[in-house]
Amino acid sequence: MAHRPTADAVVVGGGVIGLGIAWRAASAGMTVTVVDEAPGRGASWAAAGMLAPVTEVHYGEGPLLALNLAAAGRWPSFAAEVEEASGRPVGYRPGGTLAVARDADDNAALEDLYRFQLRCGLEVERLRSRECRQLEPGLHPGIRGGVLAAGDHQVDNRALVQALLAACERAGVRLVAGRAAALAVEGDRVTGVVLAAGGSPAGGAASGPSPSSPTGETIPSGAVVLAAGCWSGGLGGLAAEALPPVRPVKGQLLYLRGPADQPLCSRNVRGLEVYVVPRGDGRVVVGATVEEQGFDTTVTAGAVHDLLRAALELLPDTAELELTETVVGLRPGSPDNAPMLGPAGPQGLVVATGHYRNGILLTPVTADAVAELLATGQVPELIAPFGPGRFAGRVPAGTARGTP
Amino acid sequence: MAHRPTADAVVVGGGVIGLGIAWRAASAGMTVTVVDEAPGRGASWAAAGMLAPVTEVHYGEGPLLALNLAAAGRWPSFAAEVEEASGRPVGYRPGGTLAVARDADDNAALEDLYRFQLRCGLEVERLRSRECRQLEPGLHPGIRGGVLAAGDHQVDNRALVQALLAACERAGVRLVAGRAAALAVEGDRVTGVVLAAGGSPAGGAASGPSPSSPTGETIPSGAVVLAAGCWSGGLGGLAAEALPPVRPVKGQLLYLRGPADQPLCSRNVRGLEVYVVPRGDGRVVVGATVEEQGFDTTVTAGAVHDLLRAALELLPDTAELELTETVVGLRPGSPDNAPMLGPAGPQGLVVATGHYRNGILLTPVTADAVAELLATGQVPELIAPFGPGRFAGRVPAGTARGTP
Repeated sequence: MAHRPTADAVVVGGGVIGLGIAWRAASAGMTVTVVDEAPGRGASWAAAGMLAPVTEVHYGEGPLLALNLAAAGRWPSFAAEVEEASGRPVGYRPGGTLAVARDADDNAALEDLYRFQLRCGLEVERLRSRECRQLEPGLHPGIRGGVLAAGDHQVDNRALVQALLAACERAGVRLVAGRAAALAVEGDRVTGVVLAAGGSPAGGAASGPSPSSPTGETIPSGAVVLAAGCWSGGLGGLAAEALPPVRPVKGQLLYLRGPADQPLCSRNVRGLEVYVVPRGDGRVVVGATVEEQGFDTTVTAGAVHDLLRAALELLPDTAELELTETVVGLRPGSPDNAPMLGPAGPQGLVVATGHYRNGILLTPVTADAVAELLATGQVPELIAPFGPGRFAGRVPAGTARGTP
Repeated sequence: MAHRPTADAVVVGGGVIGLGIAWRAASAGMTVTVVDEAPGRGASWAAAGMLAPVTEVHYGEGPLLALNLAAAGRWPSFAAEVEEASGRPVGYRPGGTLAVARDADDNAALEDLYRFQLRCGLEVERLRSRECRQLEPGLHPGIRGGVLAAGDHQVDNRALVQALLAACERAGVRLVAGRAAALAVEGDRVTGVVLAAGGSPAGGAASGPSPSSPTGETIPSGAVVLAAGCWSGGLGGLAAEALPPVRPVKGQLLYLRGPADQPLCSRNVRGLEVYVVPRGDGRVVVGATVEEQGFDTTVTAGAVHDLLRAALELLPDTAELELTETVVGLRPGSPDNAPMLGPAGPQGLVVATGHYRNGILLTPVTADAVAELLATGQVPELIAPFGPGRFAGRVPAGTARGTP
């Protein structure tokens, strides 16, 4: 069996959350290993990259709104830092988001949301039909009105994944292309991560020939970050009550493409049932369904139809775009739609999951806060309201992979 | 330069038409070469495999109807012969086709079609709403009525492609994976086919190392069959008036999949805007747009939406199916929607293209008749009305690939 170096921290999960934490921790001088079978190819890859705390505000989610706003405020500098560290663009586009109403019912719902946004002190502007079409001439002429959230932007989530991978590599993060089967625990302390059979180390700082089947091999580490998205509830070696109660929430999205010089729209456009996110190069992301279907990742005819219809109702020229890809992501849902961030279970375990629809948005603050927690042992104030222990007493989700 | 054996016939184009001809000719003892960059991956691959002369009858196409009916009658034995020759199934399913009306307008149009079908002496049965739903319980409850064409069947066009390729290989047909650039002509006689630069021979009876760039290489042959679908108008070396006036007619289709034991429907179902073709294994083909877009093969959001909507209006459970593939085919359209079959231009040239929407259906009669023509020099009576010369005086389509 190959010798495994001890890591200061092992991050289980190589989505934007795990990669962001690993990069920040490694940049601060730690020795970090990330374990993921297919880094960056989960929910991070399927996402649309909306950074929309204002447009997506929901009743009864005050603490989450504060975190989301902090994250949105952190994004410009974070984007610059990732680009500096990786030498790659992340496609951060500060264009704002326009929510529009197709009809009177939509407009009434939008008015309610607008008043709630005002009560929350958010920066929003109510627009008439004509004003909407002045901003976005491609809108359907029947659009009844809208709300502009000038501070809700976007990032190219796939470019972000690639940039974080490059930043991790440059910072010396070791990537293990395997599956974490269990936490290794001695007494009340984490001692490492046990890999599943068939995993194989790859990339990162690893060198030399790889063992083909590190069955049951353990990566020793006194600190483990559980950031495996909707699969985080399936890690072995933990008491049920220590597992984060995450569940997969299926989202289907469409990737479209048109000419770069004739953009479908110039900023994020959304209706009640759909959002349309234009990249600068002619690509357009249309999303997303919200489905409780367990770990199913099937692209369904009904969802594709509904997304296309909803997009066509807002922006008729969508019809002319090429449909280049249909994609499914499994969001890590949490009981209150807010993430679980902080220590949990045995000493040395940190949870960073449950980001639900806000994984891309919350990447900067999650990465900063968890890296700080790993370095200091102190929970940063920003994430204190989101401790994983707040669901104590609940039965954890039993559908996670790896649990009986 | 490698030595090329003389062929009794070279078939330009490896779709079902070209492969069918090659197989029949080789089975009759001829030495046959097929030239195609990607055999079977054009319109033959994109098709749905409907064998529907009755359902798809059109006003003013009497001669074509007779040919289509002859082809449908030939299908059962042809399917058995291909399966025998190849050792592979072709998925011929004699289930009939049910055309249905969503509303009163549809029903009036269907009634007109039904009366026309009766006048043509076709076997059709007018059904009430309830009778339609008894045949196909998955139909939308709002379906107003239908017409059953009990003799309109289907074949799995992709299985047919694979089987014809295997049958050709067994019959000794040589496959050259290259592009035919021009006909070689001396005086008034065909002498072979000139390959484009970069083509390379592969598969079939070929052996030994392949030349990497047979630039301008000629395959000598006194007989050439031009069966290159919508690209048939682009062959060099021919006078413009000898080129068949084919044009590409774009068709977008969807491949869906559901559980084999809960079929969406048990026979072909069609409305005015869509057809739904169920395979026996849970796959379902939904088609097709009819678009004059030149050689464009883009899958568009608007077409996918319209096909899904039309299918959902007929069979609501379509929503639950997996969308596995979007595909574009370029049908070889002809000025009168009927194929061009027979000698044309210099002696030794035979045209077999312009099958438009009936390529799969007409494969048996085309293969039989053209193979007979190659063997005897006589035009079989069945295809006599479809001589390529019937458009003499027309300007050929100028959009074909390879023409200036």
